[in-house]
Formats: sequence, C-alpha cells, structure tokens
Amino acid sequence: MTKRTIALLTDFGLDDNYVGIMKGVILKINPDVHLVDITHSIDPQNIFQGALTLKTAYSYFPSKTIFVAVVDPGVGSSRQPILVKTKDHFFIGPDNGLLSLALKGQKSKEIYTITNDQYFLKPVSQTFHGRDIFAPVAAYLSKAMPSSKFGRKQHRMINLSWQSPRIDQKNKSIIGKIIDIDRFGNLTTNVEQNHLKGTISVKIKNNVIQELSSSYAKVSKGNLLVIFGSKGYLEIAVNQGSAEKKLKAKIGDSIKIVQKSQKSKKILKQSDLYQEFMDQ
Amino acid sequence: MTKRTIALLTDFGLDDNYVGIMKGVILKINPDVHLVDITHSIDPQNIFQGALTLKTAYSYFPSKTIFVAVVDPGVGSSRQPILVKTKDHFFIGPDNGLLSLALKGQKSKEIYTITNDQYFLKPVSQTFHGRDIFAPVAAYLSKAMPSSKFGRKQHRMINLSWQSPRIDQKNKSIIGKIIDIDRFGNLTTNVEQNHLKGTISVKIKNNVIQELSSSYAKVSKGNLLVIFGSKGYLEIAVNQGSAEKKLKAKIGDSIKIVQKSQKSKKILKQSDLYQEFMDQ
Amino acid sequence: MTKRTIALLTDFGLDDNYVGIMKGVILKINPDVHLVDITHSIDPQNIFQGALTLKTAYSYFPSKTIFVAVVDPGVGSSRQPILVKTKDHFFIGPDNGLLSLALKGQKSKEIYTITNDQYFLKPVSQTFHGRDIFAPVAAYLSKAMPSSKFGRKQHRMINLSWQSPRIDQKNKSIIGKIIDIDRFGNLTTNVEQNHLKGTISVKIKNNVIQELSSSYAKVSKGNLLVIFGSKGYLEIAVNQGSAEKKLKAKIGDSIKIVQKSQKSKKILKQSDLYQEFMDQ
Repeated sequence: MTKRTIALLTDFGLDDNYVGIMKGVILKINPDVHLVDITHSIDPQNIFQGALTLKTAYSYFPSKTIFVAVVDPGVGSSRQPILVKTKDHFFIGPDNGLLSLALKGQKSKEIYTITNDQYFLKPVSQTFHGRDIFAPVAAYLSKAMPSSKFGRKQHRMINLSWQSPRIDQKNKSIIGKIIDIDRFGNLTTNVEQNHLKGTISVKIKNNVIQELSSSYAKVSKGNLLVIFGSKGYLEIAVNQGSAEKKLKAKIGDSIKIVQKSQKSKKILKQSDLYQEFMDQ
Repeated sequence: MTKRTIALLTDFGLDDNYVGIMKGVILKINPDVHLVDITHSIDPQNIFQGALTLKTAYSYFPSKTIFVAVVDPGVGSSRQPILVKTKDHFFIGPDNGLLSLALKGQKSKEIYTITNDQYFLKPVSQTFHGRDIFAPVAAYLSKAMPSSKFGRKQHRMINLSWQSPRIDQKNKSIIGKIIDIDRFGNLTTNVEQNHLKGTISVKIKNNVIQELSSSYAKVSKGNLLVIFGSKGYLEIAVNQGSAEKKLKAKIGDSIKIVQKSQKSKKILKQSDLYQEFMDQ
Repeated sequence: MTKRTIALLTDFGLDDNYVGIMKGVILKINPDVHLVDITHSIDPQNIFQGALTLKTAYSYFPSKTIFVAVVDPGVGSSRQPILVKTKDHFFIGPDNGLLSLALKGQKSKEIYTITNDQYFLKPVSQTFHGRDIFAPVAAYLSKAMPSSKFGRKQHRMINLSWQSPRIDQKNKSIIGKIIDIDRFGNLTTNVEQNHLKGTISVKIKNNVIQELSSSYAKVSKGNLLVIFGSKGYLEIAVNQGSAEKKLKAKIGDSIKIVQKSQKSKKILKQSDLYQEFMDQ
C-alpha cells in the first residue's frame, strides 16, 4: 500500500504543543504515514477562513489524503464530529461548516457521524477533540479501515453560505469583496474567472485599475494590479509590495468591476452568480 | 524495526534555520526516522516553559520516541548534556531542569552524561549544541544504539522545583497560580484534579466563577468559565473568547479556589500539596 | 535507493496554505521523500536574506538533498527557473541570486534552465511557480531522474555580490557590518575567522568589547560579548540576553575591529577581503 498522507489544518498555532500532540497520537497508531501541515494559523475560531484555506489547498494533495481540519468553537457541545469520503479524499473535522467549502460540488460524498468511541483516546476531553477524536480516527483510517467503522452515514452536513459577487445590472458592474489577505498583502476577492466576460476595469477604495495583468511584473514595482491569482480568484496586488498596506485594505472591503468590452452586454445573469449550493 | 520518532522542542523559533539544520543533521545519520515538532516557540531561555510544554506532551507519543529538548542558556558552560532512558522513551537535552518535569515520577530512569564525542559533529561549537551534540546523538540513538554508548551513567540530574498550590487552612481555600497561557487565551493553573474535593468556586482578579464547567459551551459566548483542561490542570477560559484578554491576566497571577461542599471539611493536608519531588 | 530529502526555503510564511500546497504537490508525485523546512520566514522578497539562510544551512543536509528555494519577486517575468547540480546536492529556484551564496565556491556545478513543461503542473500560473514548477520538478528529480531531463545546460547564473569587510590600513582596523539578526538577538556580521589575525577588540555603537569569547558563559549574564558563532561568522551577543535590544542594532549597522596583537602588523591585504567571486 502506498504510504498515506494526513494533512492537518487547525487554529491551534505553533506556539503551544497541541499540533505536536496530535502528530504523536497519529504516529502511535500508524507510524507509516506522511504528516503535512496545511496551516495552523487560522484565526482562533474563524471557521470561514479555515474552510476557505482548506478549499484552495486540498486538490493539490495525493489521492486518498486524509484531511484533518480543526477549527472548533463548539468543541464539547452537541456539534458532531464527521468524516466525509469523496471520490479522491477523506475529510475529518467538526460538523460546523469547516469542511463544506472544500466539499462543495464534489460528487459522491459519503458523510459519516463519528460515534464509535472504540477509536477515541480515552478519557475523551471536552476541550481537545483534535487529540482525542480527530487524530486517532484519522490514524486508523490511514490504515485503510473502512469509513463505516467510525459511525453511521448521515444525509446532511452544515454548509457555510458563500457570498457570491453581486451584479449591478444597471451599471454593468460586479460588486465583489475581499475574502482573504495573504502574507504578501495580496487581496483575494470572491470574483472567479467565469464571472467575467471581456475586458474590465477595477475600482477599489478610489483607485482604478484599468486592466487585468497576466503577471505581477506587468506593472512597475510598487504599482497596483489586478490578476487572477493562483487560487483561481481575482486578486489585487502590488508588484513587489503589499496591496494590503498600500490600500489599507481589510477583509470584507468591496471592489467594483466594470465590464468594458462589447461582450459585456452579454452580462452574466444574476442567477449564475447567486446559485447557493445545496448539499444532498 | 518500526520507524522511530524524534520529537523536537526548542526555543529556536522558526524564523532562523536552526531547526532545519538540526533535522538535516539527523537525516544525514538516519534517513529513516519521523521528525515531529512539539514546538520551537518556547520563550528564549525559558526553561520552565519548555519543561512544562514537554511534560504535557510526551505521553502522547509512540513508544521509543526520542525527545530532543533544547532550551539552553548555559550552552558552552559547564552544564552537561544528558540522555535519560525511561521505560517508554528517551529524553535528550541539557542538564538544566528542562527534562525534569516530564521525568518526574517516571520509574526506572537511567541518566547518562553525554560525553562520547565520537557521535558529535566536529568541530563542536560552543553556541549550538543542538546541531553538534543533541541532534547527532538522537540520530544515532534512533538507529537502536544502546544508551550506554554515549557516556557514563550518573545518579542525579537537575530538577526544577514545582510550586504546588498553597492551602489556606483557615479559609478552606486553595491559592493557585497561572503557569501557562495558550494561543486561545486559556489560562492554565497549577491546580490538579486531585487537589480538589467537592464543589468549588473560583476567584480570579475580582471575578468569581461559581462552578466547574464540563465544556466551554456550558456558559454563554463571551463568559468566563473554569474547567479541567486537556492538560489535566484547572483552566480559566472564555467560551469562544480569550480569558487572557478579558482578565488582562498573565503568568504568575494567582487564583483562589473556595471549597464549597460539605466534603470540603475533609480538606487536603498541606503535605499532599507540598510534596516536592526528589529524584534518585 | 535511500529515501531522498527535499528541503524547502521560502518567503511564504506559515500562515497561508502555500507551503502545504507545495508539499502536497511533491507527495502526489513522489510519496517516498522526506520533506524538511529550512524556514519560510524570509522577509517577503528579500533575496539576500534567503540566500544567506540557505548558504549557512545546506552543508548539514544529507548527500543528494534537493533544496527548493523560492524567494521570487520576479515570478512571471523573464527570470528563469534553474536547477543546479553540485557534487553533493541539487538546488532548485529562480535565477535571481537566491542560490548563489550557497553555490559560491562549490566545484563542478552544472546549471540547467528548467524549461521542460512536461514536468510542470498545468496550467502554470504566473504567480506561484513554487507550486507549478519548482515543487513538481523537485519531486521528479527525487525519483532519480537525470537533471538534463528538465532543460538545457547554461553557463551562467546570477550571483549576488557579497560585501566583504573593508580594511582601514591606516588604523589597522577592519570595518564589517551586521548581515543577520536571529531570534535571540544575536548579531551576525560579515567577518570571518580567516579575516582576523591575533587578538582583537570590537567597537559597535560606542561599545567596546575587549576580546573574543569562546562561549556565551565567558561573560556575566546580560553582558556583551564577541564570538565566532555557529555559522562561522563573528557575532555580537549578550549572555542570556539580546544584543539586538541592548544595542538597538539593525541589519547594515557597522562594527569596527581593531587588531591589537603584534601579529596585526601582518594585516590582511585588501585583496584578500575583496575577492569578489566570479562564477563560470
């Protein structure tokens, strides 16, 4: 059997020993896995940020990777631990929406409530299910145990609502917003490639950027640009600088995109943008 | 032979290349180990914090794990490098108390002074024994070399004194203190489950918390609570918030626990709490 | 075949999912490698800092280690991705000087421009070559593919100029500067052991330190000292404290070294210090 990968995403940070403990628990059960950190710097209890970070990362991992995601403000409450099996991967975490953006649109999802405490670390604390439930279940799963061993199938899971850009029909414009800011100060928006037709200009905080760039280097050092970033979303960036600092931007700030070309008459239907996803 | 785990805990941080270098050194000697980070964010030269972080983590790791702990203000002085073998694990680090809290109470400890420079990286620097002594010794040990190869047995090691909570007999109360604060702002105290009998109330910085909670969710969002945390110590927390911020708390702050129930008449004897540990 | 190590050094930080994604890409291609982080905390786009951090780390890694370094302000521009094979190791990264300090002086370098997009992740983004080019090429290389598969040999690469200390002949002194500051506040200078002859005193920011120490512990706690650090450069440190804080020092600050002994008459020739390196 090819060695399995367990990829971890939490809001535990790296200053405490929580992540190290989870890895110890996993290796005690299965010494033959790869452990990879996606990140542990999700803002404490920021489920959306965790969900987005998982969504933009998971597809680059090997087939059969087990993703363990723990951003869990409801630990110890009635929220359920779940395991979701997709065609290519496994996802383990609290049923609070954290897994939902990555799972959106994936076919043939099987959702299991994790209830079989035979695979838990005991006594199970009410404050650290990462250690006591999620890590050991991931470890047993990595030994090729069937998902059904861990609990019963369920039909629903909690999904985060994803706010798509808003179309302003009258002005042939699209109003998006900043959903993420990275270390370089690049501003990721919720605008996707298929939202746009033809050439555009972008307005953000009274700055107008007249065209899409294909790389940072297309503008001079220190200048603003708009680009489709590596995550597949429209990003605002500064060549060799920080758009966050230059614009004093923050998550939630809005951007306005104006469709300039003739093709822009064939503007997207509102319904294309607003299709909220419904699972099961 | 099952693949061994080497778990690292240092105050080196992740910004410099020190930790990466230690891993390089280890893999050069034994390419067939798991390397796990417990944390590298111990405050520079804070031996107690390192010792506590190791103590609350080690038991979750696989049998035969080799812990390499380096918080080493006396590097290059006369302090000795040691290797301690217990029933289940190996601990490597400077003999300055760093290993002592994890080792407290463990049976059948064998302590070795690491002196055999045949296993060191040469020339041995006087500033980075993590690279030149601890990493290579851990790597050779992970190849199942006997501990006695690295130096002579010794009978003592330096132990940190652990300040147990203080009993105030007259007022049937226990005075503990904050010994650790995690990323979430949870305040870990030095009060353990076996220190308490019956129901309690807790006073911290003019806030009174009337009962123990079994999970964060037992109080409303933003409210203070007291709970036995995942480390086994009494913790002060805020549901979906930070007790550190709410209370402006810091390490060393005291908390007062009042035993409320009838059982509290059977209060713990002072000697129960003050049993300082003596090794060998 | 012994399991290969891929060592990563970037300016991506650990807060975003970029590093995790690179590891996912690598494991998807070769599940049988060791992944080691050198650091991901290089200041954004600080090529010199990245180059220095790689230079002082690489030699501690196993033979055949593949170093993937990504500090890449010119991503998407005409700068080339390169692969350099040396006697012991492989280095992959942008041709912007990042690899040059580690490669300086290494014999039998083979430099390849990475052009064979058969080994790239497609579509290749213009913003994240770490994911789309460097990671997959490293992964294929770790499966023992010959370097020539990835592109054509080239004869030159971009080298950073390294500013050696300046000799002041008249005053028998050497003027160096701070090139790095670590987590402990130790100040690394560009002065190497072979620059000095005999006993010295060091002046930095109006503080005079009268002699070289062989370890931190040679001075009292809180005092300044000069020492040849683990990287091989002269460092200014404070025993159990931070020279950075004590001196309010920053990168680029100069230090003056006075050669005190008789031997100092045999002062180094200017040419010894200024030999700029020329590759190929």
